[in-house]
Amino acid sequence: MSQPDRLWINVTLFDGLATAAEPMAVAVTNGLIERVCPMSELLVGEPAAGEVIDAEGRVLTPGLVDCHTHLVFGGSRAGEFEARLEGKSYEEIARAGGGILSTVRATRDASEEELYQAALPGLEALMSEGVTTVEIKSGYGLTVEDELKMLRVARRLGRERPVRVITTLLGAHALPPEYKDDADGYIDLVCNRMIPAAAAEGLADAVDVFCEGIGFSVAQCQRVYVAARAYGLAIKGHTEQLSNLGGSAAAARAGALSVDHIEYLDEAGVIALAEAGTVATLLPGAFYMLRETRVPPIELLRRHGVPMALATDANPGTSPIFSLKLMLSMACTLFRLTPLEALSGVTAHGARALGLHQQIGRIAPGLRADLCLWNTSNPAELAYSVGLPTLNQRMVAGEPA
Amino acid sequence: MSQPDRLWINVTLFDGLATAAEPMAVAVTNGLIERVCPMSELLVGEPAAGEVIDAEGRVLTPGLVDCHTHLVFGGSRAGEFEARLEGKSYEEIARAGGGILSTVRATRDASEEELYQAALPGLEALMSEGVTTVEIKSGYGLTVEDELKMLRVARRLGRERPVRVITTLLGAHALPPEYKDDADGYIDLVCNRMIPAAAAEGLADAVDVFCEGIGFSVAQCQRVYVAARAYGLAIKGHTEQLSNLGGSAAAARAGALSVDHIEYLDEAGVIALAEAGTVATLLPGAFYMLRETRVPPIELLRRHGVPMALATDANPGTSPIFSLKLMLSMACTLFRLTPLEALSGVTAHGARALGLHQQIGRIAPGLRADLCLWNTSNPAELAYSVGLPTLNQRMVAGEPA
Ligand SMILES: [Zn+2]
Ligand SMILES: [Zn+2]
Repeated sequence: MSQPDRLWINVTLFDGLATAAEPMAVAVTNGLIERVCPMSELLVGEPAAGEVIDAEGRVLTPGLVDCHTHLVFGGSRAGEFEARLEGKSYEEIARAGGGILSTVRATRDASEEELYQAALPGLEALMSEGVTTVEIKSGYGLTVEDELKMLRVARRLGRERPVRVITTLLGAHALPPEYKDDADGYIDLVCNRMIPAAAAEGLADAVDVFCEGIGFSVAQCQRVYVAARAYGLAIKGHTEQLSNLGGSAAAARAGALSVDHIEYLDEAGVIALAEAGTVATLLPGAFYMLRETRVPPIELLRRHGVPMALATDANPGTSPIFSLKLMLSMACTLFRLTPLEALSGVTAHGARALGLHQQIGRIAPGLRADLCLWNTSNPAELAYSVGLPTLNQRMVAGEPA
Repeated sequence: MSQPDRLWINVTLFDGLATAAEPMAVAVTNGLIERVCPMSELLVGEPAAGEVIDAEGRVLTPGLVDCHTHLVFGGSRAGEFEARLEGKSYEEIARAGGGILSTVRATRDASEEELYQAALPGLEALMSEGVTTVEIKSGYGLTVEDELKMLRVARRLGRERPVRVITTLLGAHALPPEYKDDADGYIDLVCNRMIPAAAAEGLADAVDVFCEGIGFSVAQCQRVYVAARAYGLAIKGHTEQLSNLGGSAAAARAGALSVDHIEYLDEAGVIALAEAGTVATLLPGAFYMLRETRVPPIELLRRHGVPMALATDANPGTSPIFSLKLMLSMACTLFRLTPLEALSGVTAHGARALGLHQQIGRIAPGLRADLCLWNTSNPAELAYSVGLPTLNQRMVAGEPA
């Protein structure tokens, strides 16, 4: 065995699913994890490596995965947030041009360069807390050209910053004004024009929908899934956030990687996820901002062995939250996950929600060496504290970044 | 008028109470704010200054004031947090040595140097988000020597880091095991030994109490106030957090700078605060962590003109939250403050809660030039977003820090 490029020793290892019982060593070569073993198994003469990093008991985790964001958007909704708290009604705000359609207008009006510059601070805030893979959705363009524009910005973010970006076409996010009273006509556009165009340009890794009374029906979402699969794209769904339409089960049966939000998911839906191997993605930031009271069915998900991912849902309307670390706290405090479940949600299960579990999200031989070293010796501290512990080292493909 | 050391131009000014209607200029000399005026009033030939900083419309606020923290403590309660989420009962955790007394044990066991090193990351996390003044309480020593040790650590933090530290003796935080069943005897110790010793060494700026069924009675707290006032120390109270004992009104009548938590405060208590000029300090971090449902009486506080401060309550048990910026979001989302009320809570009213409103907390001539420049042009963004906007510049007494 040749000498590894980098060797971490005396690591408290959270490998994406569990915490090791003894001090560990992790060797990296050519950007991949080569070996993971207890310190007691390092041979005499070892460590020999290009660089040896003594973690002194610090926690090493996989690089964090934020598997559900809407980081690319135009404008700001801070004014609307303020107006609501000053007593304005939703109706007054809508009449004044607020709500999601204000983001759609601002996104359509923005150039690719403007959207890119506007998205950078949010992406960098996530990266500063250890995110090494982030999914970014379109969904504020709602025309073929504007959706592709958003996806191009997302791709560029991944090229120009040391972070892996997965892109998702969310054409079926909201009904654009041009299609008022013609949701089926808009779904035709999504299926027949947007998905083929995004696939042709290689701009989308997956396709997502908003399945809800105020979004699209289960039947409409199923049409989107069929079109996406025909182009070889993965599928995901915003489902059961505000009501129980059976959208999660329909998505699971269509082979969805994940269903997201799922506050109103029932046991039949949970069983459908378990049978299909679909991940349940929890988004406590939106739950917090919307002051929801209905908590996702955590106990049922546990009982049926459904992997739970955890993400920011970073978006200008319902979760202007650019901190995946805070989601660890909120998942525990608001949804009663354990700290280790929450950590798995932003590592192993976050990776699975993106179909990347054979490449990232765990610290295991052969996986990509996206790693975070934290200034604590207890993984639970990551979910317990807010603002601490700080990141000691963020590695992307084995290199400091 | 001589030339100022520094002049900010094209500033969106939040002065601690309100946002200016037009672009502003702020001049600083000898660490103090010298002049605040609209850009249109800068004379031809101005700006002439040692350094001119073009804010390009960015928001300038007073340096943030975190007026209620317990930043100095030994040990960690992450394990207890994890145990509770894994299904252990409070009783099991207490039997296993958890709860506040575990922090007391660890604090007593720690040296001053250990406590100092342990407190630094939390302090630096607050500073990184714009905090320039922080109050730090004792309260985990519960012996004369250990309480003084905590206060010495707090003083040292203020000497060795560019941040103003205000110290508060919180001897009456919890009943130490040595005084089990003798709360009055412990209050004797606080009044007759701790307060005089802290005053003699100049270690405490104020004295605080925990007035609650599980803390100390109103009568016991009143004894502490009398002793504190006899030594010329300001007073504060943890009151009406879990029940309504009338502790806030008693504190106000004794001349308290602030009463803190106050979820159960009633209108008579609010009126007592208004009459005494006592600040109401809101602590949404503890409300969030404890999953409380009873919200402080915000509308009554508004109606009676009681200033509302806002703080982290950073502590290892009920608010391991080292982010004052997150409190802006939580004050709005959980307590329905407006963004500007929340911002006043961490600036002008935070300063008033420490009795420092003539020195800091506003951007006005003669006050200390503790300033934050933010990467946004809308003050409401500070409360609306989490993780953003980032800090562009943090100034302490007019110098970058
Ligand atoms: Zn979403
Ligand atoms: Zn407190």
